[in-house]
Amino acid sequence: MGPVRTGVTAIVPHGGNLFAEKVPAGLFVLNGFGKSVGLAQIQELGTLETPILLTNTLSVYRVADALVTHMVKHNPQIGVKTGTVNPVVGECNDGFLNDIQGRHVTAEHVMSALADATSGPVEQGAVGAGTGTVCFGFKGGIGSASRLAGGWVLGALVQTNFGRREELLIGGRSVGWDLREYTGGGAETPPGSVMVVIATNAPLESRQIERLCKRAALGLARTGGTARNGSGDFVLGFSTAARVSHWPVAVLAVREVVDESSSEWDQLITATVEAVEEAVMNSLFCAVTVQGRDRHSAPALPVDRLTW
Amino acid sequence: MGPVRTGVTAIVPHGGNLFAEKVPAGLFVLNGFGKSVGLAQIQELGTLETPILLTNTLSVYRVADALVTHMVKHNPQIGVKTGTVNPVVGECNDGFLNDIQGRHVTAEHVMSALADATSGPVEQGAVGAGTGTVCFGFKGGIGSASRLAGGWVLGALVQTNFGRREELLIGGRSVGWDLREYTGGGAETPPGSVMVVIATNAPLESRQIERLCKRAALGLARTGGTARNGSGDFVLGFSTAARVSHWPVAVLAVREVVDESSSEWDQLITATVEAVEEAVMNSLFCAVTVQGRDRHSAPALPVDRLTW
Amino acid sequence: MGPVRTGVTAIVPHGGNLFAEKVPAGLFVLNGFGKSVGLAQIQELGTLETPILLTNTLSVYRVADALVTHMVKHNPQIGVKTGTVNPVVGECNDGFLNDIQGRHVTAEHVMSALADATSGPVEQGAVGAGTGTVCFGFKGGIGSASRLAGGWVLGALVQTNFGRREELLIGGRSVGWDLREYTGGGAETPPGSVMVVIATNAPLESRQIERLCKRAALGLARTGGTARNGSGDFVLGFSTAARVSHWPVAVLAVREVVDESSSEWDQLITATVEAVEEAVMNSLFCAVTVQGRDRHSAPALPVDRLTW
Amino acid sequence: MGPVRTGVTAIVPHGGNLFAEKVPAGLFVLNGFGKSVGLAQIQELGTLETPILLTNTLSVYRVADALVTHMVKHNPQIGVKTGTVNPVVGECNDGFLNDIQGRHVTAEHVMSALADATSGPVEQGAVGAGTGTVCFGFKGGIGSASRLAGGWVLGALVQTNFGRREELLIGGRSVGWDLREYTGGGAETPPGSVMVVIATNAPLESRQIERLCKRAALGLARTGGTARNGSGDFVLGFSTAARVSHWPVAVLAVREVVDESSSEWDQLITATVEAVEEAVMNSLFCAVTVQGRDRHSAPALPVDRLTW
Repeated sequence: MGPVRTGVTAIVPHGGNLFAEKVPAGLFVLNGFGKSVGLAQIQELGTLETPILLTNTLSVYRVADALVTHMVKHNPQIGVKTGTVNPVVGECNDGFLNDIQGRHVTAEHVMSALADATSGPVEQGAVGAGTGTVCFGFKGGIGSASRLAGGWVLGALVQTNFGRREELLIGGRSVGWDLREYTGGGAETPPGSVMVVIATNAPLESRQIERLCKRAALGLARTGGTARNGSGDFVLGFSTAARVSHWPVAVLAVREVVDESSSEWDQLITATVEAVEEAVMNSLFCAVTVQGRDRHSAPALPVDRLTW
Repeated sequence: MGPVRTGVTAIVPHGGNLFAEKVPAGLFVLNGFGKSVGLAQIQELGTLETPILLTNTLSVYRVADALVTHMVKHNPQIGVKTGTVNPVVGECNDGFLNDIQGRHVTAEHVMSALADATSGPVEQGAVGAGTGTVCFGFKGGIGSASRLAGGWVLGALVQTNFGRREELLIGGRSVGWDLREYTGGGAETPPGSVMVVIATNAPLESRQIERLCKRAALGLARTGGTARNGSGDFVLGFSTAARVSHWPVAVLAVREVVDESSSEWDQLITATVEAVEEAVMNSLFCAVTVQGRDRHSAPALPVDRLTW
Repeated sequence: MGPVRTGVTAIVPHGGNLFAEKVPAGLFVLNGFGKSVGLAQIQELGTLETPILLTNTLSVYRVADALVTHMVKHNPQIGVKTGTVNPVVGECNDGFLNDIQGRHVTAEHVMSALADATSGPVEQGAVGAGTGTVCFGFKGGIGSASRLAGGWVLGALVQTNFGRREELLIGGRSVGWDLREYTGGGAETPPGSVMVVIATNAPLESRQIERLCKRAALGLARTGGTARNGSGDFVLGFSTAARVSHWPVAVLAVREVVDESSSEWDQLITATVEAVEEAVMNSLFCAVTVQGRDRHSAPALPVDRLTW
Repeated sequence: MGPVRTGVTAIVPHGGNLFAEKVPAGLFVLNGFGKSVGLAQIQELGTLETPILLTNTLSVYRVADALVTHMVKHNPQIGVKTGTVNPVVGECNDGFLNDIQGRHVTAEHVMSALADATSGPVEQGAVGAGTGTVCFGFKGGIGSASRLAGGWVLGALVQTNFGRREELLIGGRSVGWDLREYTGGGAETPPGSVMVVIATNAPLESRQIERLCKRAALGLARTGGTARNGSGDFVLGFSTAARVSHWPVAVLAVREVVDESSSEWDQLITATVEAVEEAVMNSLFCAVTVQGRDRHSAPALPVDRLTW
């Protein structure tokens, strides 16, 4: 069996023209040992103007270039009659299973991922950008979870490629330690990374989204993550409750924002921690055993070995 | 003549109860070699809930404590039925003229500065927190300037205690170099610091205020400042166009903000650079020669020696 | 029984003259809703030049002023023949038990705390700056723990005043949920804060210490903390392995630093997460029931109710 | 005449294997409205492990991908037996002259730029990544300048694409205002961006390099720059005085660093401000008139019109 060919996972904030109608966004870098692109502009302007794409580390630039192509196609003024565009692409190093040097993700994969994005349930496990990732020495992948909070929905999507097996916690139990001798490969995987995307329909400004993104780190911690040196851990967030127009409409814009002294705000904080923890769990529980390059293998979490 | 007894300068965003009705705020640290208090909460919450007080370095804590007393007096619920309060105090090291170890600024000085704050023209030169400061080897102090921009007013207030004489630029001219041999003391002063406060009635969120605060550094640069190691250079900013209620009114707040793709926003940027440059000039042109501790003296800028 | 009179806890990096011989330092702000002083200079210069003092929120400024007095006494050149000094003081809002408006911590308390600092075991529980704090609806306080890592020691000291009862996790178990009906007060306490201090004899530069400080947040998360809005959560760190001289010795300084690609560095990361989690536990297990102002009471963790 | 085809400018810190022997690095973002890649890892690890490439905005990703190819070629273990690599690419939007949508910069251009990098004088003006840039309404481009400071050399290289004509200052004189009616095009160019690279052989750690990078903003200000909204202004810096080994040599590394209380350190600060100012001037004085897409033209600075 050959190396795994990692794909792309697309997160699309709304169905309209994102460049024309941006969304408020923010981020937190727990461990910046990573290659995500597009971060500085989000921090400066507090907006996201493209879908967020996830892929493997060395494919980031080809994927970003394809995302530019996609954005230019739908906004031919870019770079000609208006400014340029800031593609946002995150990544994990899935080189344990994947032939990462090969950079097999093509523009076609990007276009397919963008075209196939739907508003329904998220496909989880060893799919898309999660095809080759390894998490706590088991097969990781894409996971997602959400919470109702303050009348809004807050969702998390993760690409899990982090953690050492003996550290895995499930519902607080040291499952990883109990399974430290479990065979089937994966235990020797190097520290990877994790990408977290937080999305909500609560009306938030970028500073508030940054605050939520910081809490995502707490959700990772509950799964046993310690953000070791080589694990690039990034959290991106956005709100779908507002549109920031690219084309000036008026000098003043009116924005609704959640009052941070309200209990609803605290509910959003708790929701973030919980959704991230559960999303990591889902990435593990949904993944199947995958064999990759050089006979490397990452076993699915042996769910039948978990006793409660 | 004894040491100068530095006072306090108070900047009061509005005439109401600031704790109950906070204002959006932000900051930029050009050189964090300084002791300003209250910064972390401004960065986190994006609001200012007390007047900003300026004083000398070692008096910061007594001034902050007096500010707590003032705030508690007007808000007796603080720390009892609601949270605490975040006093914001900036400082410069005026120890060349001032007996800074003596910490002569008392709670009474603070109460007077707060009581005397008015909405009229700012008293400039060797007054208040500028009594003992030295700027480019001449007597510095408090300076202020403002610009109309986009239909709003943007003002800057500075406490100038920075720069080496030979670096001073006035309108781009190397006046400091020309006056490098000028006698009367001051030339040997150590690198000090500068506090900049930006205020505007433009409706801005904290991230936008932070962006303006960064531009204040460009205004300092135009006067010859290079932010040497020992110069703690801080910029605080706030907008008077909104009130952020301490007491929850509703889960959602509605805020107006300037569209950053508008030309008005760029005008605010330019206004910041220009107002800061002019405020530094005003601090120099308004100051008089001051003698301080140990026969130290800082001469007024010899305006009659400037040729144009 | 009257209000609790919170004290001061002093962390003293070494027994020499800290102003003359500073130590490398760094910090991380998980939630900046707090009033700690001295942060900006640590971030800029990467050094700590005073002991770290912990106290209650409104006493921060008097404690910082007393620390200035202490530093000036031992370094009479401060502000006269050399620069000023940057006192570092952290805080939690213990106003549930403490008459925080009263600001009862005096300069004498500060001098005692500094004089009594020893290198032996840390007194834990409802002592010093932990006298009035409440953690997960139980009596919190000062806690400490340490780990051997890579041949060095890494220790954590916490002042715990955070968390809601139903969130408390002990060894991953939802103890707080099980005890949510436990009487004796405390359950209704508002969100507080937590101060974390990380100390190690591993040779680190400030950037590395900042990286460790970020991991302290992961340790807090394992105890159930979610960093709600009102909880000011700050992490300060320092290394005792180097001295940064205040008085220039030579243009170049030689420093040893841990190689971040080494396994020893990852051990320091893990040690930080674990030591912080255990320190929080120790603050709970060592604290006794305390009654404070207005008949408020915070019960000790009912250790006999924990079943394993 | 067709659109300008922007090239690539390569900055190569040393002649060895940069991935194997990284250099200390840091950065400052004056205005994050830009698409530079590789920033987060520099901030986290404080090292640079590839050459810095400069190009136009929409070509960033293809250039980064080509840089990955280059690095993998010389380090075939990347992504297979060791971690991945962090390409660093900066950019300006030169779409006024350049057909930026066309993304005409190819991998071959990148390989040529890397192969042609030499240690001699820098080619300045409308070359490489400066072929299509416009600065203060005149033709900008690549500029470079250096200073001796404290016994070391500090150099700056800039890619200038910023500023409005009427703001241009030369030696403090409002040359731009005097030339505001000057014909030949360019005056109507939109706000662009500026990339600044600071290099020195002074031994510095990343925090110190970050401090110098902040001062680069002051040099830009002296030329009239105000960092308007659309101008992405980034400063990258590195020191050639140390090597940070990719492959662990020992648990402890020994590093020399400049003492920040030394006068030599302040000389490095001043050198940064001056070198950046002069580098911008050189980019203008060396550039020739360039015609680009859609009959757009940017005139060379009319040096003969400058009177002194």
